[in-house]
Amino acid sequence: MSLNQAKRDEISSILQQTASTRRATVPTLEEILYQPISVLDHGFIRVIDYMGDDTAIVQAARVSYGKGTKQIQQDKGLINYLMRHRHTTPFEMCEIKYHIKLPIFVARQWIRHRTANVNEYSARYSILGKEYYIPRAEDLSVQSTTNRQGRGSAMSSEESAKVLDLLRKDAELVYEHYEDMLNQDQEGNILDPNRSGLTRELARMNLTLNYYTEWYWKIDLHNLLHFTSLRGDPHAQYEIRAYVNILLDTIKKWVPFAYDAFIEYRLEGAHISRTGRLILKRLLHGEKVTQLTSGLSQREWKEFITLFDLHYLENSAS
Amino acid sequence: MSLNQAKRDEISSILQQTASTRRATVPTLEEILYQPISVLDHGFIRVIDYMGDDTAIVQAARVSYGKGTKQIQQDKGLINYLMRHRHTTPFEMCEIKYHIKLPIFVARQWIRHRTANVNEYSARYSILGKEYYIPRAEDLSVQSTTNRQGRGSAMSSEESAKVLDLLRKDAELVYEHYEDMLNQDQEGNILDPNRSGLTRELARMNLTLNYYTEWYWKIDLHNLLHFTSLRGDPHAQYEIRAYVNILLDTIKKWVPFAYDAFIEYRLEGAHISRTGRLILKRLLHGEKVTQLTSGLSQREWKEFITLFDLHYLENSAS
Amino acid sequence: MSLNQAKRDEISSILQQTASTRRATVPTLEEILYQPISVLDHGFIRVIDYMGDDTAIVQAARVSYGKGTKQIQQDKGLINYLMRHRHTTPFEMCEIKYHIKLPIFVARQWIRHRTANVNEYSARYSILGKEYYIPRAEDLSVQSTTNRQGRGSAMSSEESAKVLDLLRKDAELVYEHYEDMLNQDQEGNILDPNRSGLTRELARMNLTLNYYTEWYWKIDLHNLLHFTSLRGDPHAQYEIRAYVNILLDTIKKWVPFAYDAFIEYRLEGAHISRTGRLILKRLLHGEKVTQLTSGLSQREWKEFITLFDLHYLENSAS
Amino acid sequence: MSLNQAKRDEISSILQQTASTRRATVPTLEEILYQPISVLDHGFIRVIDYMGDDTAIVQAARVSYGKGTKQIQQDKGLINYLMRHRHTTPFEMCEIKYHIKLPIFVARQWIRHRTANVNEYSARYSILGKEYYIPRAEDLSVQSTTNRQGRGSAMSSEESAKVLDLLRKDAELVYEHYEDMLNQDQEGNILDPNRSGLTRELARMNLTLNYYTEWYWKIDLHNLLHFTSLRGDPHAQYEIRAYVNILLDTIKKWVPFAYDAFIEYRLEGAHISRTGRLILKRLLHGEKVTQLTSGLSQREWKEFITLFDLHYLENSAS
Repeated sequence: MSLNQAKRDEISSILQQTASTRRATVPTLEEILYQPISVLDHGFIRVIDYMGDDTAIVQAARVSYGKGTKQIQQDKGLINYLMRHRHTTPFEMCEIKYHIKLPIFVARQWIRHRTANVNEYSARYSILGKEYYIPRAEDLSVQSTTNRQGRGSAMSSEESAKVLDLLRKDAELVYEHYEDMLNQDQEGNILDPNRSGLTRELARMNLTLNYYTEWYWKIDLHNLLHFTSLRGDPHAQYEIRAYVNILLDTIKKWVPFAYDAFIEYRLEGAHISRTGRLILKRLLHGEKVTQLTSGLSQREWKEFITLFDLHYLENSAS
Repeated sequence: MSLNQAKRDEISSILQQTASTRRATVPTLEEILYQPISVLDHGFIRVIDYMGDDTAIVQAARVSYGKGTKQIQQDKGLINYLMRHRHTTPFEMCEIKYHIKLPIFVARQWIRHRTANVNEYSARYSILGKEYYIPRAEDLSVQSTTNRQGRGSAMSSEESAKVLDLLRKDAELVYEHYEDMLNQDQEGNILDPNRSGLTRELARMNLTLNYYTEWYWKIDLHNLLHFTSLRGDPHAQYEIRAYVNILLDTIKKWVPFAYDAFIEYRLEGAHISRTGRLILKRLLHGEKVTQLTSGLSQREWKEFITLFDLHYLENSAS
Repeated sequence: MSLNQAKRDEISSILQQTASTRRATVPTLEEILYQPISVLDHGFIRVIDYMGDDTAIVQAARVSYGKGTKQIQQDKGLINYLMRHRHTTPFEMCEIKYHIKLPIFVARQWIRHRTANVNEYSARYSILGKEYYIPRAEDLSVQSTTNRQGRGSAMSSEESAKVLDLLRKDAELVYEHYEDMLNQDQEGNILDPNRSGLTRELARMNLTLNYYTEWYWKIDLHNLLHFTSLRGDPHAQYEIRAYVNILLDTIKKWVPFAYDAFIEYRLEGAHISRTGRLILKRLLHGEKVTQLTSGLSQREWKEFITLFDLHYLENSAS
Repeated sequence: MSLNQAKRDEISSILQQTASTRRATVPTLEEILYQPISVLDHGFIRVIDYMGDDTAIVQAARVSYGKGTKQIQQDKGLINYLMRHRHTTPFEMCEIKYHIKLPIFVARQWIRHRTANVNEYSARYSILGKEYYIPRAEDLSVQSTTNRQGRGSAMSSEESAKVLDLLRKDAELVYEHYEDMLNQDQEGNILDPNRSGLTRELARMNLTLNYYTEWYWKIDLHNLLHFTSLRGDPHAQYEIRAYVNILLDTIKKWVPFAYDAFIEYRLEGAHISRTGRLILKRLLHGEKVTQLTSGLSQREWKEFITLFDLHYLENSAS
């Protein structure tokens, strides 16, 4: 992540302003407010603003006149109860706003979640900066042969080098032509006074999908948690999971009780099917179950085995 | 509005807590934070929390690193521009949370707006207090004969007295039976130790629609403005407009530039049809237009005449 | 459910019209189209229209040019896969529209789900008919002492009789006064030609919450399934679950593969917490676990025991 | 637009299937069902399915038991009334599903509208075809100097030729490298059996934003009309307006009354500000108004003058 001096100055200036408020305030989150947290090679996440804290969840659930909180232990208990029983509306009473810089192909996955407010940097209006994402060699993988949507083993270093070289050269080339078409460089300097320059809204189409864009993204806590559970899933693409990890860090600083409840009841819990539940019953009552007698397909059986470390059952199945 | 001592104490206690924050803060809104503003006979609106201010709109529109604001005049100009051109997303970057007490029949209209977060007091879980809405005599009207959805002239004082008497008596009676079925009063005291009492989720069905409910209601500025424009419309029911008026007051304190732009470009602007636009052109070019030659129905013609104070055209039409 | 002759005639007339279409069509659902299915004492659900079928889910998931379906077994497998992995967007490609008649207190729970389109019968515009919900005696319960939000044991027949009597009498009384205030009966006949009558939008506030209302409700399959999973839960109120059961019947007729997948992976599956998952691992590896060593609260332990029929563990814990 | 034979066959096959239905059916829309309508150089729009027609709007507004329609003239009048008074919910009772092929930079604008259901072709899962958008020379413009977000005058043919050449060459180059990284061509043939090939989810980032993607897009009529009014606006980018024009054609075939009402009350109507309304009043009462006395900025004054063809006022202002 490299911010130019003007941007650093803007952040410094806003950091120095404090005010007195009667609103719910979270000191641990205030500490990191406005400051860019690095993601991938040029991306970042900045927390810009927030509304509410753990007690705001309790306050709304109780429709209370004051803070609505009782003893800390009771509040934590209520938050756990709400999470466990999918009473999601009190979690919607907290809101957070981020400034995020991310590659366009990541932005395209991200925006599929429709429950947030978004303001994106406009490449119709302004020139997009010359910053593109190049994966680290160790993050390059060959196409998985078992999962059409995923990564397989790591790439050979020879192939990796070639891929990285192509990505870099093409990103450089398309940007050179982008400036050429605009007849302007990224600082807005005219290149050739005798040419007019293509309109920005068209020139941008020559950029590749690994170019970075930026947006303000505002979302309530319930939908944020849902987003992290979907896009933080092992099946999600590595590049978006890198962002989700930072989001989770900020949630932990912001609403630690809700975060704990989310980890316990959602993220590290498991959803089992009707058949999976029946197999567990059978196993727990001493019955022997194999894939053949389980009612599960091979793939589901494998996942089931893995979820509960039941690898001895694999042998018994043979 | 009558709050019992416990509720007053809760509010007093939360009012005394202040903290230091780096977030955008609005002193004029802080002043009224948490305090109930009276609406109708027992209702209120309380501002519980807010995120952002006028500069947050500008900041998001510019996807900026600092506050994003330049000179006050430029900021105001940008906000006007955004409102005028229906660039609504920057207004979604401000969020506000209210605690509202309102009659159930008003709540039923209100909830039709799906873009807010809501936590309602649960009458499955708790006993609903004995507070019901009785209109003022001067707010009683007879059914309009021209508008099936609206109020006509005021009621005679004799009829009014009778209506108010019926409303009061029935509200008292159904609550007495509510407590009777529950075998509890509104403080939760058991009435007859030898009876068991109907479950709350069923007993509540005996209450009339003028009983008050309460909720936490959280919404972004764009959708809040849209709500006030629909429910503050002269065609909307008086009782919900009473709430909208208070909402508008709080918006003015919170984001004065956005409020001004909203008044100028939405609330006191007008939407004219294609035909209305053509009529204006004709009139402005000196042509004489009557209802017959206008292309408008009688009702639309009347509305058009009224919008521009063109009552001399009515005469010319005869 | 009692429909007057005019309504029966309207339904008969629409039932006789058929047309030829190239759209995805589901004969089993066509059979019940438009016909009211009885719920509670006066309520109903009617399927008015639908878009898509099981193959439409597959078609969208594959972004295909034709139907997108291959062999039936493969289609069913893909639908299971999508449901299992929470790929919810293809299920949003099916849409259904219902006409529903339901008590107002049920409508108030129902409307909390914001992802549907709704058109409700307007009691500002029209007079609400005299139909109110009275539970069957066997559905009356006393308030649960362990679950503040639920029903406990059945009521004594003596108490039940009294409750039903109060409900009936109050519903009759408030309607009599409703007509009296309106100075009209439910057919719109003027009662006293010398009085003017209160406007409908105010008179309605005198009705109790068990009066029936009606609406058109349109929703996509994904959100419909989510709705049924929340409101069909044993913790939901009996009266709304009565509607959910009928909704599930219509879904089964409409998209049988999606329905099966929903039953297998959602409705009859189970979500277990991180701690629950670890306990299962320990049990399956032969470890002895008691509530004390489980890490679960008593309530969660009880639910866990019940989920897997592990009542022998309760004894072992003592 | 060029579809390969397999896709043409799929479309032909689905076109031959008809069924009998009791649902609302629109013959003029049935005629074009499934058939690709060309947009830009390789894009298309296909209507895949629809729910409801003009009478379905009326039916929902009346919460009726049959079709809900009376005389055609009355139905048309009601639809006009609903549109005029922003009663939007009945328009949400109609739904339509499209299959759309569009350049990625257009898709990125499009997806900002969050009220639709979307299933996009997955370039994580499949290889993206080699089709990219190249504007026609006459659609190339230089950057506007007055509107930072728009196009100015046409480009010189010399500059145009250069731009088109760059766009084409870069699109070809990045695709060649895309296949190279994948070690597969777009038909899935392995290029070099001794290499493994980069995973698809990474290789795609090398494509430029003018590559075509495809999606299924489903939306209700109200939100579709809103979308066309925003993205069909003269300020919107030409490329997305090309799609909006086709959407409008399909709406006209589907719900002609709603379409007419939309044109009359929205698309060809005008929204005037409070100040604009006051100026109109003054002009219509014979007062002379100049920009200086109008209260409008120069830009707003210009727009006002244009809206009503008041160019004689410009002269009078000097």
